[in-house]
Amino acid sequence: MELLKTPAEARAFSRAAKARGERVALVPTMGYLHEGHFSLIRLARQGAAAVMVSLFVNPAQFGPGEDLGRYPRDFERDRVLCEREGVKALFAPDVLAVYPPGFSTSVEVAGPMSAGLCGASRPGHFRGVATVVTKLLCACEPDLAVFGQKDAQQAAVIRRLVRDLDLPVEIVVAPIVREADGLAMSSRNVYLSPAERAQAPALKAALDEASALFARGERRAKRLAEAARARLEMTPLARIDYVELVDAENLAPVEIVDQPSLLALAVFFGATRLIDNAHLTP
Amino acid sequence: MELLKTPAEARAFSRAAKARGERVALVPTMGYLHEGHFSLIRLARQGAAAVMVSLFVNPAQFGPGEDLGRYPRDFERDRVLCEREGVKALFAPDVLAVYPPGFSTSVEVAGPMSAGLCGASRPGHFRGVATVVTKLLCACEPDLAVFGQKDAQQAAVIRRLVRDLDLPVEIVVAPIVREADGLAMSSRNVYLSPAERAQAPALKAALDEASALFARGERRAKRLAEAARARLEMTPLARIDYVELVDAENLAPVEIVDQPSLLALAVFFGATRLIDNAHLTP
Repeated sequence: MELLKTPAEARAFSRAAKARGERVALVPTMGYLHEGHFSLIRLARQGAAAVMVSLFVNPAQFGPGEDLGRYPRDFERDRVLCEREGVKALFAPDVLAVYPPGFSTSVEVAGPMSAGLCGASRPGHFRGVATVVTKLLCACEPDLAVFGQKDAQQAAVIRRLVRDLDLPVEIVVAPIVREADGLAMSSRNVYLSPAERAQAPALKAALDEASALFARGERRAKRLAEAARARLEMTPLARIDYVELVDAENLAPVEIVDQPSLLALAVFFGATRLIDNAHLTP
Repeated sequence: MELLKTPAEARAFSRAAKARGERVALVPTMGYLHEGHFSLIRLARQGAAAVMVSLFVNPAQFGPGEDLGRYPRDFERDRVLCEREGVKALFAPDVLAVYPPGFSTSVEVAGPMSAGLCGASRPGHFRGVATVVTKLLCACEPDLAVFGQKDAQQAAVIRRLVRDLDLPVEIVVAPIVREADGLAMSSRNVYLSPAERAQAPALKAALDEASALFARGERRAKRLAEAARARLEMTPLARIDYVELVDAENLAPVEIVDQPSLLALAVFFGATRLIDNAHLTP
């Protein structure tokens, strides 16, 4: 496995692989890898001989009061795990290699896609995501890039910007991977205290509650959200950030679920903010 | 010469040329071609076997009160001229091919580079430029792209975004081409009445005035700008938009010209806004 430190090295790796006739896949991560990431890497390996993983905790997507400083990091462990998963190149640039002095450019996806859901709680977050992902795609020039459905809004933003900017890459979104008790895998789960961890499966339970109601024929977004909300409100350590039903593609709020929709939620346990979501498809 | 209508066709042309071992150059234009454009095309031909010209009057870079509707257009003439200049592909997409329904993404270069000079008079202009140029570069995947120095601020913005987004393209900026009497070539010159046209060389005369003062040792930006301004104020039909001295790379205002700088000016003749500039290099 090659270790790449600059956008120029990443591009050289990618072009060399393509010159050998290999397809190139990119799996962008912020490191501290877990089974969710490995599922993305395995999907990438199905579609490409040369799988690149990027590891970059992107300061531009963290707000002032957020967890940039304490975001979990373990480079050596990530490196070993990537190697074990058959990754061909680990692109782990320093902040200065991504944002050199004088850096001034941003990429933004306007509308509910960036402004709603997590965008409302985390202003500027999706501008940071859109900018760094555009950079990673331009530097690594992958044939496909794989993202996780847990970050559903991020996936929607990236699909939109790739289409809008005519970036020559196929975006693949992989299903959510969960712990045995239903908690969606996330690097942030390590923040949870034992008591919080014990209650964190409430997110999945809330999604299941709403999905069951949907399966019984309920189509009013308000009622479906209420069902999820009621389940979360039974959870003493949970503080709801949002519970929303949105269009699955453009993320605009929906009132009646008559198109493929997404039930998305964000919940605080102490200072730790967890997200989860489920598709509701009529 | 091939006529290309969609980003997908543009990419297919570019990739086919590269597969033949040819370098690809892109010359982005808004059409109504003149000697200034031809100088860009000739420079492109020196660096690449496959020269693409894009022709797109980009609505996103025109403000509400600006000249989008009456911007001069003559597709048939442009097509013949491109063919005569040895252009291999003319990429002339419709507005819907560039901005399909649901389009939501923008690229922006922050700071004085976008906010100063023409950015102050034309809010949103450089966001429109940055977005469409990013799209053109991503769709056409050229090895090099050629822009004109007349639009110095545009060239600075594009250089910045190409560096910031890690776009794999070399940006070449070609010198200003002038009419015999000094007026910088521009598609907008056709708007000028005969009386305005007769006075329009005042822009170049103003630049020359300041350059001569600079050559005699003056380094104070205020004095240099005053010299240019005085020359413009002698011109009855000229209404000054701005006269400014800025850093040649980041376009921040300068007080003393002790680094390579740019004297940039914008002047209205009636409703027609002309721009011009000169490098002042100590």
